[in-house]
Amino acid sequence: MNRAKTPQVGVIEALAAVLPAEALLTEPESMRPYECDGLSALRGTPLCVALPETAEAVAAVLAICHRHGVAVVPRGAGTGLSGGARPSTGAVLLSLARLRDMDAIDFANVCIRVGPGVRNLAISQKTRPHGLYYAPDPSSQIACSIGGNLAENSGGVHCLKYGLTTHNVLAAEVLDARGERLEIGSLAPDSPGYNLLSLIIGSEGLLGVVTSCQLRLLPVPEETVLLLAAFGDVGRAADAVSAIIAAGILPAGLEMMDRLAIAAAEDFVHVGYPREAAAILLCELDGDAQEIAADQARVETILREHGVEDLRLARDEATRLALWKGRKAAFPAVGRLAPDYYCMDGTIPRVRLAEVLAQIAELSRKFGLPVANVFHAGDGNLHPLILYDANVERQQQQAEQLGAEILELCVRVGGTITGEHGVGVEKLDSMCVQFTPEELAQLHRIKAAFDPEGRLNPGKAVPTLHRCAELGAMHVHAGSLPFPELERF
Amino acid sequence: MNRAKTPQVGVIEALAAVLPAEALLTEPESMRPYECDGLSALRGTPLCVALPETAEAVAAVLAICHRHGVAVVPRGAGTGLSGGARPSTGAVLLSLARLRDMDAIDFANVCIRVGPGVRNLAISQKTRPHGLYYAPDPSSQIACSIGGNLAENSGGVHCLKYGLTTHNVLAAEVLDARGERLEIGSLAPDSPGYNLLSLIIGSEGLLGVVTSCQLRLLPVPEETVLLLAAFGDVGRAADAVSAIIAAGILPAGLEMMDRLAIAAAEDFVHVGYPREAAAILLCELDGDAQEIAADQARVETILREHGVEDLRLARDEATRLALWKGRKAAFPAVGRLAPDYYCMDGTIPRVRLAEVLAQIAELSRKFGLPVANVFHAGDGNLHPLILYDANVERQQQQAEQLGAEILELCVRVGGTITGEHGVGVEKLDSMCVQFTPEELAQLHRIKAAFDPEGRLNPGKAVPTLHRCAELGAMHVHAGSLPFPELERF
Repeated sequence: MNRAKTPQVGVIEALAAVLPAEALLTEPESMRPYECDGLSALRGTPLCVALPETAEAVAAVLAICHRHGVAVVPRGAGTGLSGGARPSTGAVLLSLARLRDMDAIDFANVCIRVGPGVRNLAISQKTRPHGLYYAPDPSSQIACSIGGNLAENSGGVHCLKYGLTTHNVLAAEVLDARGERLEIGSLAPDSPGYNLLSLIIGSEGLLGVVTSCQLRLLPVPEETVLLLAAFGDVGRAADAVSAIIAAGILPAGLEMMDRLAIAAAEDFVHVGYPREAAAILLCELDGDAQEIAADQARVETILREHGVEDLRLARDEATRLALWKGRKAAFPAVGRLAPDYYCMDGTIPRVRLAEVLAQIAELSRKFGLPVANVFHAGDGNLHPLILYDANVERQQQQAEQLGAEILELCVRVGGTITGEHGVGVEKLDSMCVQFTPEELAQLHRIKAAFDPEGRLNPGKAVPTLHRCAELGAMHVHAGSLPFPELERF
Repeated sequence: MNRAKTPQVGVIEALAAVLPAEALLTEPESMRPYECDGLSALRGTPLCVALPETAEAVAAVLAICHRHGVAVVPRGAGTGLSGGARPSTGAVLLSLARLRDMDAIDFANVCIRVGPGVRNLAISQKTRPHGLYYAPDPSSQIACSIGGNLAENSGGVHCLKYGLTTHNVLAAEVLDARGERLEIGSLAPDSPGYNLLSLIIGSEGLLGVVTSCQLRLLPVPEETVLLLAAFGDVGRAADAVSAIIAAGILPAGLEMMDRLAIAAAEDFVHVGYPREAAAILLCELDGDAQEIAADQARVETILREHGVEDLRLARDEATRLALWKGRKAAFPAVGRLAPDYYCMDGTIPRVRLAEVLAQIAELSRKFGLPVANVFHAGDGNLHPLILYDANVERQQQQAEQLGAEILELCVRVGGTITGEHGVGVEKLDSMCVQFTPEELAQLHRIKAAFDPEGRLNPGKAVPTLHRCAELGAMHVHAGSLPFPELERF
């Protein structure tokens, strides 16, 4: 190797030696699709794009980058919403999209082994003829891949009952920053040693690269019904949500939309949502017929106690899917109301829902920017959509400031700054609000335990202590950081 | 402070300055109850026993030990079965037994905050009048405490349906080795940052000390029924277990006992177990009446297809508890068959159950030691009880060797060396079989990220790479350890 060359040139040569020509992109034109993820405002240009097809090739890419001291940004389908897959300048973008193997269904253990590039929906499409499905269903499930789902610990409409990604993965093969292989988790109920599987899931590509995973499958429920409940008051709808959960009922999904979101969805897909309502709840119940009947009666009683004004029931699949259609199209529908919108993602304890929605309305008035709310109410996972026009001077900054204040509100009531979209690049500053310096320092020590040189997805998910100190959001004791050894982070 | 004194003397003085006299034991007589946990063969004498009553006092104890460079062994109720709470010589034994606060039930979030010293059963006793309970129910639940449950990620008869401890804890306050406080997890469905909560749970006191936690409560099921199914053949019973799970039925519990265990239990508690059976299954179903009826019919069909010879149903509570009584008394009952017994704890993929039981019988014959099997069949969590007489020369070593071979068998078929009893001191060598050097090195790096000086519960849970290399169970590349920087572990 020519020692005079920069490490960047050396790494491309080394990658070219182990990857077929079509699996290594270096031309700006061919790399364009990899400049951003779903958060398209944040872009970057990688040094090159590697598209390995096997776990061995992924290991080779990682080992080469490690030897050359070059950063690696792992990428799934690129549907993430917080910039987690944005390429860093000079980094190798490592696409896992071509690891698309799916094993046969393991009926005895009711699970399936898949590669990280397999699309979320493709799994249920394969298993449904056998009466099984994979439960986590993020809105992007038609496009997003399992590797990205693990990186972000994705949820979806049904995670209230069936859990997040972390509750539906049994085991994984992971490569560390050097390309060393670790097998974590198992098909058995518990594993000795620290729970590395839960640690890797949701770590946004900072700790390791998953090259295959065993996913839990669930039996397709016998029946499913959907209730649409319209309320004249947002607070009463929110309180009904808490009451349903407090009664020990676990709906498959429990979603809420406010007046602005209802109108936008109805204008877009015309499914007959009640425009006059201040809020609607969509409550899905699944299971066997008797179970559903019992839960349905209890849910209806609670809804009436909370002053529901219009209650509709979808029992057949066509009506049910029509009612869901408005919810599922709500983001693009709201997007038609203004030139730009900013989709927030925060969580709160369910019981604070009414109060937090009232405060979001107050913030919306203060900033003079409309906010539509479409969200996983049962989980307390909010998705306020802030409408603005980037061409109007300062509106983008105002929208961002409003978003930051909403997240601070979430933390203040005991919630978190992200429910399912991850921190990525977008929420680094909000992490300073969420965590104390001690807690952030602990997260950095975990990172160092997997990737001491900080090569995997640098600059994402966990802010440096300096960044927080500069923001003033972090409490700095006596003018110095509490863990001096961590100042380099 | 007198500099000439040893750090050990200094630490006792420093502890005496922050703890009331009755919260610091230093006399051998008073420390005797703390010499071992439930694995009474492994004993040790601590430097002293600290019994703080508040989280602040626990933090003070940790900070003092950190300053003096003295090790700390955290302890719950001392019911653990793998020696995880055995005092190390010269270490401070830190009992969490006095942190017994329980908040009021949080009905809106369906959870309760408790201190680590609260007994497992006390939680359900408090919440049951309100129709709620805490699901994980280890056999020791009358005595064991929540702090120990978190340390061991405890399971129980019902974890098949309701999960292990890790699935039932929402958040925790944790102190690190220096006594710094971390808040991890939240009442919201997901948290940003790495999942430190799952990492701490099951870490056997090596990463931090939990001073309070939020536990998920579940509604008490409307009804519960118990099926007892007797088989003339162990393999058919085992296959029935797999078939029930593969059919998508999720019993609340699915337990198995073999002939030796049946006879021992029947002799002990006289509940009418079928002595002539080669194996019995206890299958509990809970939920609402219709749900149970539907599942029960399907379970009965599967049991018949697998040649069940005797099928009994306990619908009323008295009969149900009587049938459980034999299972719950099985360990002490088997203990009456021989002077000593060695309780193993390993897991296997459920589908390998018949084959593994046959191989355990084979190993039992080879070693000439009887083995009784009483276990969580639905989880694939085996509890072979090896009978021996420690007064007969070499029998204890033979029992240990037989146990080690059973665990190796578990790993060989894709299982693990512990289901719910932890590694502690007892299974350190088996960890060398379970994990590759790379995987163990990663576990050590996690430890170092929390406790770089190795003060928390040293010598437990994760073996040194040297220990494994000396055992010959570890693959050492080219005569050197793969991560030289870790040789000190």
